[in-house]
Amino acid sequence: MIQNLYEDEEVERLDRDALKALQLLRLKKTITTALITPFYKERLMAVGIQSAEDIRTLEDIRKIPYTTKDDLREAYPYGLLAVDRDEIVRMHASSGTTGTPTVIYHTQKDLDNWTNMTVRSLKATGCHKGDVFQNMMTYGLFTGGIGLHYGAEKLGMLVIPASSGNTRRQFQLMKDFQTSTIHATPSYMLHLYSRMEEMGYSLSDFNLKRALIGAEPHSEEIRQKIEELFHIDAYNSYGLSEMNGPSVAFECTEKKGMHIWEDAYLVETIDRNSLEPVEDGVEGELVLTILIRTGTPILRYRTKDLTTVIPEACSCGRTSRRITRIKGRTDDMLIINGVNVFPSQIEEVIMKMPEIGTNYLIKVSKKGTLDQLTIQTEVGGDMFTDNAQDLHDLRRRIVEELQATITIKALVELHEPGFLPVQQGKAIRVIDERNVY
Amino acid sequence: MIQNLYEDEEVERLDRDALKALQLLRLKKTITTALITPFYKERLMAVGIQSAEDIRTLEDIRKIPYTTKDDLREAYPYGLLAVDRDEIVRMHASSGTTGTPTVIYHTQKDLDNWTNMTVRSLKATGCHKGDVFQNMMTYGLFTGGIGLHYGAEKLGMLVIPASSGNTRRQFQLMKDFQTSTIHATPSYMLHLYSRMEEMGYSLSDFNLKRALIGAEPHSEEIRQKIEELFHIDAYNSYGLSEMNGPSVAFECTEKKGMHIWEDAYLVETIDRNSLEPVEDGVEGELVLTILIRTGTPILRYRTKDLTTVIPEACSCGRTSRRITRIKGRTDDMLIINGVNVFPSQIEEVIMKMPEIGTNYLIKVSKKGTLDQLTIQTEVGGDMFTDNAQDLHDLRRRIVEELQATITIKALVELHEPGFLPVQQGKAIRVIDERNVY
Repeated sequence: MIQNLYEDEEVERLDRDALKALQLLRLKKTITTALITPFYKERLMAVGIQSAEDIRTLEDIRKIPYTTKDDLREAYPYGLLAVDRDEIVRMHASSGTTGTPTVIYHTQKDLDNWTNMTVRSLKATGCHKGDVFQNMMTYGLFTGGIGLHYGAEKLGMLVIPASSGNTRRQFQLMKDFQTSTIHATPSYMLHLYSRMEEMGYSLSDFNLKRALIGAEPHSEEIRQKIEELFHIDAYNSYGLSEMNGPSVAFECTEKKGMHIWEDAYLVETIDRNSLEPVEDGVEGELVLTILIRTGTPILRYRTKDLTTVIPEACSCGRTSRRITRIKGRTDDMLIINGVNVFPSQIEEVIMKMPEIGTNYLIKVSKKGTLDQLTIQTEVGGDMFTDNAQDLHDLRRRIVEELQATITIKALVELHEPGFLPVQQGKAIRVIDERNVY
Repeated sequence: MIQNLYEDEEVERLDRDALKALQLLRLKKTITTALITPFYKERLMAVGIQSAEDIRTLEDIRKIPYTTKDDLREAYPYGLLAVDRDEIVRMHASSGTTGTPTVIYHTQKDLDNWTNMTVRSLKATGCHKGDVFQNMMTYGLFTGGIGLHYGAEKLGMLVIPASSGNTRRQFQLMKDFQTSTIHATPSYMLHLYSRMEEMGYSLSDFNLKRALIGAEPHSEEIRQKIEELFHIDAYNSYGLSEMNGPSVAFECTEKKGMHIWEDAYLVETIDRNSLEPVEDGVEGELVLTILIRTGTPILRYRTKDLTTVIPEACSCGRTSRRITRIKGRTDDMLIINGVNVFPSQIEEVIMKMPEIGTNYLIKVSKKGTLDQLTIQTEVGGDMFTDNAQDLHDLRRRIVEELQATITIKALVELHEPGFLPVQQGKAIRVIDERNVY
């Protein structure tokens, strides 16, 4: 089998033609697997795909309808299972608090493949055997914690399975074991910093080299803030449970976009209105097909995440294309008085202001018939001042910068540090108080 | 190497002489490992043990001083590390909320050995490939969750990494995936039952076959209550992070004591006053030496747990000796007006009363110069009555039964269901309000 001919490092550097040949082979295998499931059997038959033989080129994938989150809900719990139940050794499920849950099944081989992708991702950021890896992502049904855990162990890092929360203990572990690598949400990294001094620690207590941040969209400014505050490298990452979890795409040490592991994930980007494919270099909704899983095949999954495929090759030598940081989910887009606004655009502006701390909140409410956008921020510890004129000037600058970016005049509130609720897991940064949106 | 000559199932059935030979081999290897650590090098040299050659029989282990929790704290963080730091792929640490934490390091081989023990334990309870395993123990630094997770996956069970809490979701998962096996604390099992009806579920929604209960001492009556409420088998288990975690000892389907895996753990029981060894069949403090770990060797660890080694062979055919359920930790013992009382004795009495629900609380306070023991209980849902005479009679019966067992006259409070705080993780059943104890 050609897919076994390559070592991981070779796969990462395959020329595009060889990579495409490998993708096609794996796609055919995935189609065969998908046809076993009740859900895809019906879907694929309906468009005339009766076997893998009906897929002759990678472009033939366009014959297949997109799969959505709603499809996964409809197929719950067994409509997408492609192997005997006895072959499943793990499942991950979404919480289902907002409706029917979704579920992904993994065979042992699926887990091994996933682990290989996480090892590859960790290596891309410079992690190696002996590094101390403190995993501050939640362990359990959420894939963020346990996913990278397996890879880090396989790579031979010293894994501290800290899980999320308990900031005081996180600091103690970071100090006592001289943690080099943290895995956390960007919000939690900022939270850590904001509590460091008060809990009696300073940067010199630690041996931090890098943070792997993910699980929530964030701006380049947030990344830079984390790097500056901790004097470390922060690497952006991307994953979603439908595509296993963390390690769908990961930044390399160049930090210029995230390599999407194309031997494992077939990438498309589509216009979110016409749903037609867009060219590399053009922003669109990311659509993914997983090529390395037999438990639950998923074809052409609409991730709702907006990104741009970077057409240029990366100077690191990896040939897998990169995607730009996720701008936001199409679901996240706010329509404010008819204007499309992404929370990430607002974050970008306020995080450029050195006076502003690491926590903020975006509120949208109704004021009569109009929408009102309010941004609550905290002025950073050292910068906080009682000088009314300074505060007035700062507020005015933010309002102007925001208006220049999103065309909307927002109400900006400046508060003392600690005013806003602490964000620990996936941060909630947007509160939409309107009835319809 | 003789230790590689046996398959797991053979090891479980070795005759005692062969088992002892295997233990001696592994003990010598462990002594060699221990002599690498700063902590044991000093300890062992001080009693004239300079190499594994100074251990000629299993009884020679008595030359070595006991290791205590305080020793582990003193050796924190690296005093007990026996390999290059680069060889460590996982650490587990106690929370350290009550003082310096303790830490255990694992190499990849150590984790593999631990996983083998968990596979063996799961098999002993009848678990097999294809069983649906819902793991309700906390994942993270606590070894309870992740420990059995690895074994269940290796055995080929379908693992649902639910972690603890979120009772509503636990029920949904149990129903949707027809969970056969639950891993939880006994308190959480009782909590689950108490919420089942109100959350809209009944036993017929589920496919439960067994619960693996552990992580807190509990009485035989609690086990039987769990079995009767859910119509399942409940298997007792024993483990502690110093000895890896879960799967030090596990019940087989005979349910007559827990097989302690003697090829992995060298067992002693000692008198807790004289610290001299006691015979099999006599209650004492369990002292363990781990024979299957190189990251952190621990010799003659005083577990503080009280148990009795059962001398008779088990009818299941496994030759590893069994221990009786943990009566309590020596630390847990309450001295009430000069009388030694174990919370487990109180639990036994109240759980024998069918009128009493699943939750209870033991309070010890000062009343003048005397100690006052108060037991708060909930009268079970169906049995709750406003008939003052019935309640009076029930209360009197409990007081009498308690006095017959622990010789102390307790104050017994009967409350309506839901009065007491809900116990989810390791239950807190004892509140000692005295200043000194």
